[in-house]
Order: sequence, then structure tokens, then C-alpha cells
Amino acid sequence: MGNIGICGAGLIGASWAVGFANAGHKSLVYDNNKDSFKKFELVCDQLLKDLTIINPDLDVNKIKSNIILDCSIEDICKDTILIQESIVEDLEIKKKMFVALDKLAPKNTILASSSSYLLISKISENVVHRERCINAHPALPPHVVPFVEICGSTETSSEIIKSAMSLYKSANYAAILVNKETEGFVLNRLQGALLNEAVRLHEGGYASMDDIDIALKHALGIRWAFMGPFEIMDLNAPEGIKDSFSRYRVGIQNLAKQQNTVPEYSDEYLNQLENEQRKRLSHSARPDRIEKRNQMIALIRKLKLELGEDIQNG
Amino acid sequence: MGNIGICGAGLIGASWAVGFANAGHKSLVYDNNKDSFKKFELVCDQLLKDLTIINPDLDVNKIKSNIILDCSIEDICKDTILIQESIVEDLEIKKKMFVALDKLAPKNTILASSSSYLLISKISENVVHRERCINAHPALPPHVVPFVEICGSTETSSEIIKSAMSLYKSANYAAILVNKETEGFVLNRLQGALLNEAVRLHEGGYASMDDIDIALKHALGIRWAFMGPFEIMDLNAPEGIKDSFSRYRVGIQNLAKQQNTVPEYSDEYLNQLENEQRKRLSHSARPDRIEKRNQMIALIRKLKLELGEDIQNG
Repeated sequence: MGNIGICGAGLIGASWAVGFANAGHKSLVYDNNKDSFKKFELVCDQLLKDLTIINPDLDVNKIKSNIILDCSIEDICKDTILIQESIVEDLEIKKKMFVALDKLAPKNTILASSSSYLLISKISENVVHRERCINAHPALPPHVVPFVEICGSTETSSEIIKSAMSLYKSANYAAILVNKETEGFVLNRLQGALLNEAVRLHEGGYASMDDIDIALKHALGIRWAFMGPFEIMDLNAPEGIKDSFSRYRVGIQNLAKQQNTVPEYSDEYLNQLENEQRKRLSHSARPDRIEKRNQMIALIRKLKLELGEDIQNG
Repeated sequence: MGNIGICGAGLIGASWAVGFANAGHKSLVYDNNKDSFKKFELVCDQLLKDLTIINPDLDVNKIKSNIILDCSIEDICKDTILIQESIVEDLEIKKKMFVALDKLAPKNTILASSSSYLLISKISENVVHRERCINAHPALPPHVVPFVEICGSTETSSEIIKSAMSLYKSANYAAILVNKETEGFVLNRLQGALLNEAVRLHEGGYASMDDIDIALKHALGIRWAFMGPFEIMDLNAPEGIKDSFSRYRVGIQNLAKQQNTVPEYSDEYLNQLENEQRKRLSHSARPDRIEKRNQMIALIRKLKLELGEDIQNG
């Protein structure tokens, strides 16, 4: 199994390192800030703890032995089949990093950026071998939600896209293909559409923060945990998806006509959100809630696995 | 405990009857089409079977004994604290029904319509006691997703809204308040925003039906099964929700600017959706999938209950 280069030893980098190591790859981790490695092992241990909820038989020591810390940039470029970049979200820094990786890595190594808002057409602008550069954007929290969306620029070769899809899938990621560049790809475009409407409803005084959260978590979200929008529509009318959309299209179109304003997200409004949210959850209670979130996700994935509703590659 | 009048013996009516009966109310069911009752008990049995997944100790016979079939319209108006209307989605028919219910029911009985797209301000137009009329819109499938959004017109009294919220909550519904009328209320506005964007991405050739479904069910939806958009944003940046929105607001606003087109939903496009969907799931396999959907929802709710993440009223 080919080695994977991990460029950037933050939370996203740790998550990729664990994910690929869990699939049997060697993950070679580089960060130009050596301090990153002080917390890195601790972070990996926490991620592995969550993964053990999904699979109690996880061979934690074997996975950890597959993660090689504090490699040089030359190390992660030597004999690796993929380099996953997850450094700071700064276009100029990423551009320089991609030029450096392109110079050092063998020509058939895939160069992937974890970025969502910075598109690979920009990041790879000064790279010689642009055909091997892609965005491979994960979800949050990435270790218990092993999702990745793959998108190339017009310069990316179709062979690279094909190899990347197959590589992430074989490493047990739910990998989807974004056929052409668009800000936010699929994940954040779907999320953004919902988030903007949640804010329109809240800021417009239609419903409280609590009640909007309830509509998602106690109604819509339970279905969305194991079915996408198209499958759901297919089951919502007697004859299937065409029947469903035929019944609801006027209503859905009316909503689209109304949902075209751009929320301001003023500082005043963000302060209001912060105040309301702190009444529900104190600042000091947030770390425990984050831990609970990761556990809940792991438990739902375990349930989906048991019921044959989880990621199935191959 | 007060009796509940159920007006309309379809799937939604059956679900309300079971829900209120499960909470200890007597559900008196009326339908002007006597044939509706031929299937009604069978439907209730299926709903109760799904509910038994959430609570294996469910006293099915007691619940069934609380459901009184084939009542007259006079019966469901006599001594009931709430009449839940779930007849055909036709404004003129609903308007006439509300006038009839208003004439027969005691003045303090709440009159609630299950409709989402037909607003109570229209439905109650010819009613004398408009102050007691509300929309009380459920989610799908309503028996395993006991969610309701309450919305009055400008004619509705605040006391009625307050009583309704308290009644549905005490019957273990996740009840939310929509402060003023808006097409689709909260649930369908959030769902519609996501659905329109899913269609823009699919019709625009950015991603396949399969891949868009994967982005929801294997990434976004797992969190949304137990957390709403505001709580999620609160946990997505080190300092909380204000920090989160400050980091992402430009990106989210850019998406809002782009997500303002109205999909056409042409017959050609709906045929394409139908063809693609039938390749994934045959028409004859749909009933089993619907059953599996209901079971999955019940199992996720059971998990949420066990972890203290389910509906908690009072």
C-alpha cells in the first residue's frame, strides 16, 4: 500500500493521518512549525478514542505505528502516492507550498488541498504539473465523518481525478466528485443554503434560535442522517420522485423566489447570536459538548453500519 | 385528560390519533368517507409497530383502546380540547370544514389545521371565532418524527397559541412556535432552501444525484440528526458562534448571492430525475425502503433518547 504525505499537523492533518493509517497506509506527517507535534499525539489519541466507539475492535497501536511524526518536506514527497495539504487557509502560503511540493514529489503523486473556499485553480497557479492538483475537502469533524469531495481545475487530468476517487474510497472515505469548480463545492453550498435561511428566519423574527434548531434536529435531520434529498423526495409521494416534485414544485419555486436576500451578518446581529447562544450553553460547557457531539456522530455511524446504511465502497 | 378530535382518517390523521392516544388522550376520529376506516386500523398497527422500536414496553392495546373510530363530526366537536384537521389539501374544502367545526365545537376548543402551504389566515377566513384557529403542521413521517410547528394568523389569540404549545408539548411533540405567517413555516423553508440548491447543483452538472445524496447522508446529516444550525456553528470555531460567523460570513454571503435562481422543475428534468432514481431503486423496492426509513428513524430516536438528546419537554 502506498505511503501518504500529510502536510500540516493541525486537527485536519491529524484526522487525515489517522484515517489513512486506519486503512493500512503509512502516514508521513510534516509541519514547518515543530511545536505542532507537541499536541499531535494527544489529538490522535482522542480521535482514535472516538473511532473505537464505531469499531471496538480497532487496532489502535497498529494505526499509531503507521503514523510517522515530524517528517521533513522531502520525506513526505519521497515515494508517496498522495500528499494531503492542510496548512493555514491563506492563498499565498498555499500557492508557495504547492510549488514546493510539485518540485519535490514524483510526477505521479497526487497533490490535494483540504481547502474548501480556496479553489485549486488558484492554489496551483504557479505549479508546473498542474494536472495532478486537486481540492479534496473533508467534512467536520473529519475523523468520525470520513467524507471527502474531490474537485479539479480545468488543468487537472481526468486520470488523476479517477485515481484520487479510487484512493479515497479504498481508504473508506465517502468520496464524491464535483465535476467543475464552484465556491463551497457541494457540502458547503448545501449547508450555506440552509444556514442563510435559518438566519433569515431568526433575524426576521419568525422563530427563535432554539425552535429553528429543534426543526432541524428533531425533524429534518433525523431523515438526513441516512438519506439524501433526492432519495427522500422519491419516497414522499406514491409514484416516486417525479410525482413528488410535480406535487410540490410550485411551493418549492415560491420559496426560491423568497429566499434570495443576502443576510447582513452585522456585528450587532452576531453579538445577539452570541448572547442567545451563551444562555443555552456556557462557554465553559462547550468542550464537553464537542466531545458529546463526536460521540453521538460515532454512535449514529455505528448504528448505520449495523443496519447496512453506512459508507459502502466497492 | 382532554379528548382530541381527529378530522380526516388518512395517514396524517392516523398518526395524530396514535400520538395523542399514546400520551393518554382519547382520540375521536371522524372522516366523511367511511371507506377511510377500512385501512385505518391496519395503518395504526403499522405505526405502532414502528413506535415499539423506540419503546419496546409500549402498551399497544391501551393506545388502541384510546382511539375511537368512525365518530360523527358532532362527536369530535363535543367536549374535545383540540380538533386536528388533516383532510385533503384544498383551500375551499378546508374553509368549509373550519366553518362547520367552529359552529359545533365549544368556544375554547382549539381548531388546528395540519396544512403547511395553506395558511390559517385563509383557511379561517369565514370562521366566526378566528381567535382559536391555528396551523399545526407535522413532519414526515409524523409518527416517528413527533414534530409540530404552530402558527397563528393575526386574528389568533396569544392565549390559544400558548395553550396549543403546552398541549402538544405535554403530548410529547417537539413543538415550535412560528411567530408570524410565512409560506412553508420553518420546516419546509429550511428543507426547500436545501432542496433548491441540491437541484441547482444537479441540473447544473456539478454533481450526480448519488453524490449529492452522499454529501447529505454521510456528512451534513449525521450532525443535523441531533444538533441544529446555530448549535453547530457555536461548536465550529474556538470562541463560539460569533467567532464562527465572523470567520465564515463572507463565504456564506457569497453563497447567498449565487443561490438566488429559481429552478424550473420542467417535466423533462423531472423525467430525468425519475429515470436516474429508478436505476438506484426500482419502483417495486420502494415500499420496503419506506419501511426501512421508518425503522431507521425509530432507531436513531431510540439512540437519541438513551443519550439524552431526544425531545425533552419540561
